[in-house]
Amino acid sequence: MSFSEDCIFCKIVQGQIPSAKVYEDEKVIAFLDLSQVTKGHTLVIPKRHEENVYELSEDSAKAVFTAVPKVAKALKAAFDPAGINMLNNNGKAAGQTVFHYHVHLLPRYGKGDGFGAVWHDHSSEYTKEDLNQIAKQIAAQLNE
Amino acid sequence: MSFSEDCIFCKIVQGQIPSAKVYEDEKVIAFLDLSQVTKGHTLVIPKRHEENVYELSEDSAKAVFTAVPKVAKALKAAFDPAGINMLNNNGKAAGQTVFHYHVHLLPRYGKGDGFGAVWHDHSSEYTKEDLNQIAKQIAAQLNE
Repeated sequence: MSFSEDCIFCKIVQGQIPSAKVYEDEKVIAFLDLSQVTKGHTLVIPKRHEENVYELSEDSAKAVFTAVPKVAKALKAAFDPAGINMLNNNGKAAGQTVFHYHVHLLPRYGKGDGFGAVWHDHSSEYTKEDLNQIAKQIAAQLNE
Repeated sequence: MSFSEDCIFCKIVQGQIPSAKVYEDEKVIAFLDLSQVTKGHTLVIPKRHEENVYELSEDSAKAVFTAVPKVAKALKAAFDPAGINMLNNNGKAAGQTVFHYHVHLLPRYGKGDGFGAVWHDHSSEYTKEDLNQIAKQIAAQLNE
């Protein structure tokens, strides 16, 4: 297992820092986010230290996202939320504060519950041609 | 493959509705979100019609989240964003508008770029005991 010395989440994985744990398997651990943006707000993380989505190994990705639906179903069963959001931030500009890959699961209870998305639709600024051009630029990187 | 007749994403999967496609494999397709909340805003979805995270099969989860880091890396290579957010909404109360599981990948270019999170820290409202109690309630559902 690959740990990083100054990483708070690695310390949680190793049991050096306590956490309110909800799930654990060989490769994954899930525990409550202290900020409890909404009640039941849970983090699901790979045990391996991988900083962000760019570093996330296929092995960790499969393990984390096999666990995510299980934890989501448990949150639904425990608190009967009206919905649930999954959020993952990569890079400071995207709101990442702990640099060990983690997925937020946020049960939703209605407006003003603590979480929401700022969401500006820019569809009017793009033609169909623009979109095809952007898609080509991305696809070109995938095919390299 | 399981399709739903009135589902716009199933129609995209089947090629009945055009899309600006960036990636495709046996089980997954990724294409641009028309709203382009930020430039390069991409959706990654399972080809199988599964409504939300509660219905997401382990097979689809593994396939979608094997593709996600690949698409994220391609977005980084294509547009050099400062960060990237991954968002998934389940249920109307969480902002879901198309009821076929999908993950938003949102490249980030700085404040005011179109996306952001409303994020209220409620840590002061919970004692350590409260958190342990909440974690137990969730874990109890996972162990059933």
